[in-house]
Amino acid sequence: MATQPQKKTVTPPIPETAEKIPLSLSVSLIAAQYALKTSQPAVHSPPALPIPARRSVVILMSGIELAGKGEALMQLREWSDPRLLQVCARAPEPLQRQYPLWRPYVRDLPAAGELKILFSNWYGDLLRARMKGGRDPEGMSQEAFEREMATLESFEQGLRDEGMIIVKCWFDLSWKSLQKRLDNLDKGLLHWQQLHGLDWRERDQYDGLQRLRHHLGRDWITIDSELPEQRDISFAHLVLEALQQSTAPVATSESDSAGTMPINLPASDIPAALLSPSRVRMEKELYKARLKRLQKSCTALIRERGNRPLLLVLEGMDAAGKGGAIRRVVSRLDPREYQIHSISAPEPHELRHHYLWRFWKRLPDAAGMAIFDRSWYGRVLVERVEQYASPAEWQRAYTQINAFEQQLCQHGVIIVKIWLAISNDEQLSRFKARETEPHKHFKITPEDWRNREKWEQYQTAVADMLAHTNTPVAPWHVIATDDKYTARLAVLETLETQLRRAVERLDMVDG
Amino acid sequence: MATQPQKKTVTPPIPETAEKIPLSLSVSLIAAQYALKTSQPAVHSPPALPIPARRSVVILMSGIELAGKGEALMQLREWSDPRLLQVCARAPEPLQRQYPLWRPYVRDLPAAGELKILFSNWYGDLLRARMKGGRDPEGMSQEAFEREMATLESFEQGLRDEGMIIVKCWFDLSWKSLQKRLDNLDKGLLHWQQLHGLDWRERDQYDGLQRLRHHLGRDWITIDSELPEQRDISFAHLVLEALQQSTAPVATSESDSAGTMPINLPASDIPAALLSPSRVRMEKELYKARLKRLQKSCTALIRERGNRPLLLVLEGMDAAGKGGAIRRVVSRLDPREYQIHSISAPEPHELRHHYLWRFWKRLPDAAGMAIFDRSWYGRVLVERVEQYASPAEWQRAYTQINAFEQQLCQHGVIIVKIWLAISNDEQLSRFKARETEPHKHFKITPEDWRNREKWEQYQTAVADMLAHTNTPVAPWHVIATDDKYTARLAVLETLETQLRRAVERLDMVDG
Repeated sequence: MATQPQKKTVTPPIPETAEKIPLSLSVSLIAAQYALKTSQPAVHSPPALPIPARRSVVILMSGIELAGKGEALMQLREWSDPRLLQVCARAPEPLQRQYPLWRPYVRDLPAAGELKILFSNWYGDLLRARMKGGRDPEGMSQEAFEREMATLESFEQGLRDEGMIIVKCWFDLSWKSLQKRLDNLDKGLLHWQQLHGLDWRERDQYDGLQRLRHHLGRDWITIDSELPEQRDISFAHLVLEALQQSTAPVATSESDSAGTMPINLPASDIPAALLSPSRVRMEKELYKARLKRLQKSCTALIRERGNRPLLLVLEGMDAAGKGGAIRRVVSRLDPREYQIHSISAPEPHELRHHYLWRFWKRLPDAAGMAIFDRSWYGRVLVERVEQYASPAEWQRAYTQINAFEQQLCQHGVIIVKIWLAISNDEQLSRFKARETEPHKHFKITPEDWRNREKWEQYQTAVADMLAHTNTPVAPWHVIATDDKYTARLAVLETLETQLRRAVERLDMVDG
Repeated sequence: MATQPQKKTVTPPIPETAEKIPLSLSVSLIAAQYALKTSQPAVHSPPALPIPARRSVVILMSGIELAGKGEALMQLREWSDPRLLQVCARAPEPLQRQYPLWRPYVRDLPAAGELKILFSNWYGDLLRARMKGGRDPEGMSQEAFEREMATLESFEQGLRDEGMIIVKCWFDLSWKSLQKRLDNLDKGLLHWQQLHGLDWRERDQYDGLQRLRHHLGRDWITIDSELPEQRDISFAHLVLEALQQSTAPVATSESDSAGTMPINLPASDIPAALLSPSRVRMEKELYKARLKRLQKSCTALIRERGNRPLLLVLEGMDAAGKGGAIRRVVSRLDPREYQIHSISAPEPHELRHHYLWRFWKRLPDAAGMAIFDRSWYGRVLVERVEQYASPAEWQRAYTQINAFEQQLCQHGVIIVKIWLAISNDEQLSRFKARETEPHKHFKITPEDWRNREKWEQYQTAVADMLAHTNTPVAPWHVIATDDKYTARLAVLETLETQLRRAVERLDMVDG
């Protein structure tokens, strides 16, 4: 992605008087802040859609040390309503090989109606890692840098698709001015610089960073930071423009085609396994013996996989046996070795974020294992069928989900996705059993019956999902589940095979 | 708190057959899990109350190493629905002197309708710190241990008051059995033990922990862990009882008197400052000069305060000038030095927690500064006036809030609480100005006018709040705000004085 950056540098209107421009700027800023906060959902939202489709604004700050990012932000606080201006600044994150660079910042992303300034952000970590590489042989290679850049661009595109406005500001400063500012540095502020662990008295360092900046992509806006007043006005103007953009009316067609075009995908064929899952019953004794062997083997493989996060995704119609399968997977594991996430409807605060946000937050720590009992595929299943997502939204979700999984797998995450295919008849008989057997009664609700009425729609959605998200890095495994014993063993067998392959691939890469 | 623990040891019903009891136990467990999940808000909730008053269950696990906490949990997962059983296990937290021990675990607390098992919890950190103290002179003293215990008991009481069921399980094992299990230890599981950094081959270590356990308070339940099967059944029974208790019908009076009795406080006198704040106008030149001096001084003090978190709490009626005051406080600070929290109505997911939970989560890091534009005092102001909290709830909140602030201050947090007192007339004229001046128009909403109609009720609530939460560690500072200049200077003066005192106290303690 080594494109030359556009030489876009903001030139603010020349202040007529020292006071006049900042005052009108301040009034506009505050008005724009409130407009974003109180903005209404976009008109194109279907009535069934509970999602407030308001937009959000994120400002990423980066640049040369001592250019005055902090001062510009202080001035912005003066001019704006500081209560509607959230700043996220934290110590640099240690690089986690297992995840893309955006991961630690997920909690800092703005919700709909919010403006957030990411003083520390993924680009800071990226630049630091690569800069270190200049002298430290263990640092990030140019190749890895470009791969990370591609990942970040794909991540940001996903955010933009769902309504976020992202502005990237590069605070630029000449070598001469930097040295002068270092001479005059207030010792009280020195500790912020020390965080970065770089020596700004070294010309190589400075030149290296400036070279790197040219690989950052063309959407960065350079803020000339030689003159503090001009710098602060430029920055405030950028924020103002972003805020105004966030509340500008959006035409329906434009909004729906943001990022990925609606693709109007042709309906996919329904796989045979979905239409008539095998119902051959397995003997209990045989099942028990095989179960034991598979559990041992899977447990060992889970522990041998090294520092790689593992995501086991279980999807299926109601009563397909997801819970029973999960129980068999975890039964020999220590409870500290995994986390189960039962996914139901998103919370209101989750609805104000990208639909993947609640899953980003649930990604396990390095070496952790997360089991998803339903997952992000809800976007193209229940949200499609119930019309919580517009056709453009669920159609572009295929691409977004593939990109998300691809990014994770590239960094070493293992994803195993399983569709438990139950037949219509078998679901009916399990529902009936749940209603009659007292200790199963709590498992069935009127909603389950309502969902059952939409069987055909769900089958279509499932077929499309399998067709469009069955990728080489994260393929789907369809398992017929009318016979519970066979299904549970198949889940464990799939997990075993996939873990074995992942471990082998790891050996291959490392060796 | 060195009370002798009640010798409460669970004796499970003797299994008639090896299979029979676990099966019925399993059925009961699953039923109880679903009952908790689907339990309805308590009937006593006033209709205006949007809070789902369902209960929650937290199980704290502790005990002798290798007693089999992990195995008991694994077995519990087998018998229950693992999707409704959330386990929180993390590496031990490094002790943070500035905060009580419960703080890192706030994110692990169950919401209403949830069951959570805290494999790692505040007692683990406490015991480890004290054990270390046995040999390490820098470890925790007996005195500090007892202070922490008192803090934890007060914290847990607050959780119980708002509907949480807390069960503490001590997995006990004799010295002899411990040594035997160490002999037979599966090397694959060894890393969990190593986390604790203690040598269980040393008799002193074992005896020290057993002595300490007797100081843990009488509400711990000992689970005899010599026989694995009995241990697992005992533990599962405890969890079952807690679940059943969580959905047992609660009489209105009992529920309202849970923990703290409703006190039916007599109404407090309204302080003169609230009734007729001074309206003497300050000269602009004088204001500017004083402001500059105060901002310099406060900024310096904020930076000199050392590793102590600082909470600045601003409360006041609408248009009292909280935003303007905040702006003057932060204007010379680096944006990375503070965080502003504008508190409005809680989110639905926040309503399923203790009302202080959303503030626990917003406590700044060590050495951080948080400014609260409205705060936890909403419980005894807006929630009281709008009847979102029942009289028993807001009345016991005084005690709870005092305890919360006391706990923080004891650990070194600095809390500065300011009430900005505006007169009824002045509010009216500011509201009118907001409606007519175009750049202030967004600051006024119909809700502000509705709140204004309840002026008298708010004044009563404020008077009670000032009377009941004006504590020596965290006193209230009432500042008349009809003249904005005077008020802003007074806020800075208050902050200056309080910071100076805190810094002096720190010197006193350290010296």
